[in-house]
Amino acid sequence: MKQSAVVLLSGGLDSCVTAAVARQNFDLALFFLDYGHRTNLRERRAFHDIADHYGVPPGHRLATGTDALRQVGGSALTDRNIPVPDADADRNDVPVTYVPFRNALFLSLGVSWAESIGASSVYLGAVEEDSSGYPDCTQAFCDAFARAVDYGTRPESHIRILTPVIHLKKHQIVRLGVELGAPLHLTWSCYRNSDRACGRCDSCILRLKAFETAGIPDPIQCES
Amino acid sequence: MKQSAVVLLSGGLDSCVTAAVARQNFDLALFFLDYGHRTNLRERRAFHDIADHYGVPPGHRLATGTDALRQVGGSALTDRNIPVPDADADRNDVPVTYVPFRNALFLSLGVSWAESIGASSVYLGAVEEDSSGYPDCTQAFCDAFARAVDYGTRPESHIRILTPVIHLKKHQIVRLGVELGAPLHLTWSCYRNSDRACGRCDSCILRLKAFETAGIPDPIQCES
Repeated sequence: MKQSAVVLLSGGLDSCVTAAVARQNFDLALFFLDYGHRTNLRERRAFHDIADHYGVPPGHRLATGTDALRQVGGSALTDRNIPVPDADADRNDVPVTYVPFRNALFLSLGVSWAESIGASSVYLGAVEEDSSGYPDCTQAFCDAFARAVDYGTRPESHIRILTPVIHLKKHQIVRLGVELGAPLHLTWSCYRNSDRACGRCDSCILRLKAFETAGIPDPIQCES
Repeated sequence: MKQSAVVLLSGGLDSCVTAAVARQNFDLALFFLDYGHRTNLRERRAFHDIADHYGVPPGHRLATGTDALRQVGGSALTDRNIPVPDADADRNDVPVTYVPFRNALFLSLGVSWAESIGASSVYLGAVEEDSSGYPDCTQAFCDAFARAVDYGTRPESHIRILTPVIHLKKHQIVRLGVELGAPLHLTWSCYRNSDRACGRCDSCILRLKAFETAGIPDPIQCES
């Protein structure tokens, strides 16, 4: 019997391909966190669609929530009063869609679940270079967090943090997903909408470019 | 005007004294997380009582919740089917009251809030030696987590993790609290009950010994 690995699955492209990678060596334990963000219900549907696609049983999927990040605020994804801007390729600061220290929350809960069910690894679909420039998507952050996991969990737990797509370009992630048969048609990336992707926000633009560069049609259609 | 510091305040002895320490140098921003644990409502009351005592305005207190740790399970504090054992001084493994990687969750959310409101520090009332032996209460864990904060937040945020009572004995924490005028009569420590402390669980025994050794009567009464 394969060991289990927890995959933090937002329902987006990167985490879907990360799940496809994890699946090669592990039984999937899929984790979704609803943090009251704009597209939470659409992403939750993508999470369950992907889990269904991979035949992950109910006991190996955990979709849970917290209101804490919405109350914390400070991001266009959780505060309805801060509009989601169109993508701006010239920008090099941390954008307003950054949700403060969000990946630390995901990793913390993923590690808690891994420790509880005896999973050996937690997969995170962070992308460092070819992304929006969020500080909690960097290799340096993930490495430091992995040290905190070593010290902060039971000595016998030995939970690893794995980020298989962190240094890939987005079009490489698309190609890897296609190669592994990942259900990219079930993913959702748009920051703004839950019915038809806007095609203009940071996340849509990164996705559209990725498919275009990979020479593969995006199975999800968008407005523009 | 003083800078703000986020204090992770469970409503127990250690975090109350930690708040008293933080208050010497900072405006308090008090954070409480209801994670569906046994004594959540009683602790939430202690949190607000302490916040009221210090005159912390509503905008500087954040009491929020998540069901995730209860769903994750694996602890007597979140799973009603696992009884809270009486304290056992001879035990040297990690006890069943350990909530997997809980302090990482608290710290993650505390840092998110700190980054959102521009607070410079996050205080955690972890106690390493004179405690229940939870791995996420160690200096090594807190130091590693602090590195993750350095890398995982905006470059200009510079949020420090401060643990002023981590190397104190429990009776020293009681004395420090009395010295600083901390409202110890408003705190709650029992793992089991929400009306009258049981006096037999790990947390009660540690507290009772602490007051006894300090030569100070515990303002909270217990069953036995």
